[in-house]
Amino acid sequence: MNRTSTLLLGIVFVSLTSAASAETPVTADVMAALVETDWRQPDPANVLYMELPQGMIVMELAPDFAPKNIVNIKKLVAEKYFDGLAIIRSQDNYVVQWGDPAEDDDARSIGSAATAISPEFSRSTDGVKIFNIDSRDAYADTVGFANGFPVGSNGEQVWLTHCYGMIGVARGTEPNSGNGTSLYVVTGHAPRHLDRNITLAGRVLSGIELLTTLPRGNGPLGFYESPDELTPIVSVRLGTELAEQERLDINVMRTDTDAFANYVKSRTFRREDWFVEPTGRIEICNIIPPIRVD
Amino acid sequence: MNRTSTLLLGIVFVSLTSAASAETPVTADVMAALVETDWRQPDPANVLYMELPQGMIVMELAPDFAPKNIVNIKKLVAEKYFDGLAIIRSQDNYVVQWGDPAEDDDARSIGSAATAISPEFSRSTDGVKIFNIDSRDAYADTVGFANGFPVGSNGEQVWLTHCYGMIGVARGTEPNSGNGTSLYVVTGHAPRHLDRNITLAGRVLSGIELLTTLPRGNGPLGFYESPDELTPIVSVRLGTELAEQERLDINVMRTDTDAFANYVKSRTFRREDWFVEPTGRIEICNIIPPIRVD
Repeated sequence: MNRTSTLLLGIVFVSLTSAASAETPVTADVMAALVETDWRQPDPANVLYMELPQGMIVMELAPDFAPKNIVNIKKLVAEKYFDGLAIIRSQDNYVVQWGDPAEDDDARSIGSAATAISPEFSRSTDGVKIFNIDSRDAYADTVGFANGFPVGSNGEQVWLTHCYGMIGVARGTEPNSGNGTSLYVVTGHAPRHLDRNITLAGRVLSGIELLTTLPRGNGPLGFYESPDELTPIVSVRLGTELAEQERLDINVMRTDTDAFANYVKSRTFRREDWFVEPTGRIEICNIIPPIRVD
Repeated sequence: MNRTSTLLLGIVFVSLTSAASAETPVTADVMAALVETDWRQPDPANVLYMELPQGMIVMELAPDFAPKNIVNIKKLVAEKYFDGLAIIRSQDNYVVQWGDPAEDDDARSIGSAATAISPEFSRSTDGVKIFNIDSRDAYADTVGFANGFPVGSNGEQVWLTHCYGMIGVARGTEPNSGNGTSLYVVTGHAPRHLDRNITLAGRVLSGIELLTTLPRGNGPLGFYESPDELTPIVSVRLGTELAEQERLDINVMRTDTDAFANYVKSRTFRREDWFVEPTGRIEICNIIPPIRVD
């Protein structure tokens, strides 16, 4: 194919969708071209380290979206509420959840933490810088990323979306019944119908495979039915509680840079040799900001 | 709320989307109201039984969408090609894959099966009865179900979609390099950019948790790096090769009935007490036709 027909092809693509271009890079090239300012180091005050016998899971909290719940989670962590509790649920293609396996009178004291917190299912778009993705989303009017997290919006409100690896605050039937004592991680196809129905508070950065490979629970909704099925939580600590050398040297790709725009483009138009059909379309949960552990 | 305002609410809903109704049933009620004709028993000639040391995985093939590949897969099964091979890959949030861990001269003979098969990435819509879903899909112009399987379409062509649990025919860079000797199952968020780039051939009906809980491979793309990480395949059999009492008495919800339309509606409008926001929207891979094992 000569240069002219390549250019023509480029023009045809552009007429189909605004993000298209024959010069769209492949992901490997985008990654190779990244510079240090394309990455960010999550604030240790917003990073949770959950140690299981199998290893460490590292999570980033999203205080811009669930400030009150995160204050409560930090109180629980500071008072070592989670140490010795357990993974209580694994439902295939849905969620893994942890918390106190004991109920009612046998349940552990939540110390100075609040019992009930008003829902943080969405927030005003005021002051939130959203990098919009050119996608036709089944659930939200618009989708994109804000501060590294996937979001949906209707223009007035913005909310975190239930993509793989996102962390939520489990609740009962009452909307304000979640308080951070029980958290879940999405471990299957994005259950986006939960968006705006429950508070999301962050995402797993590292170690999610320790959760996703746990045996599924045989009880209703994947809850474990007997105590010997539970995986104990050794400890949960905030990054700021750890010595600097104990912290993971983790970097997350920024979502407000030209590099990220190129990354999204490379995931939208798949120009690797393997692809026959470059797609030219993307769905929000098929973009996960890359992680680099040094 | 009195009857008048309930009706008004109904009318408002209807104006927003055609499928809406204040009388939308909840899923539990739809399931409770099913009658025998709302279910189908997959043809044993299209059901694969893969036995692992951990248990049995049961899959349904979709010959309407990948006839040539499925002829080849059935040849391989009949000649016991898979017996003693292995699960060779588990990549978190993506796929589990099986096949021959040996390569080149050490690879097992494929017997009378074909080496290369022309791609079956999509097919004509002629003769395919599609139950359309009222969804705004990121990847396909329209989506729905055909013969129990999720599909995307552009009006002229129709193709199976890479939803959780769907089974595909692994291939190399050449589009015709897949032949059914290596198959994969989607085990994470739907990688829909693979649609129309690779042949899908069916879906897992039962036992997927035996695959999704396998340790992730440490090699590139989640391939296992050493022989002792491999999970051996005891055997793969077609339903017709098994005695009737060895077959799973499995029923799949039909996707061409009023009951299925109600089921989809109940997944679109979440009217269970727990939901604050009924959503009113649905994405194709968040509908998985229910299974009943008697």
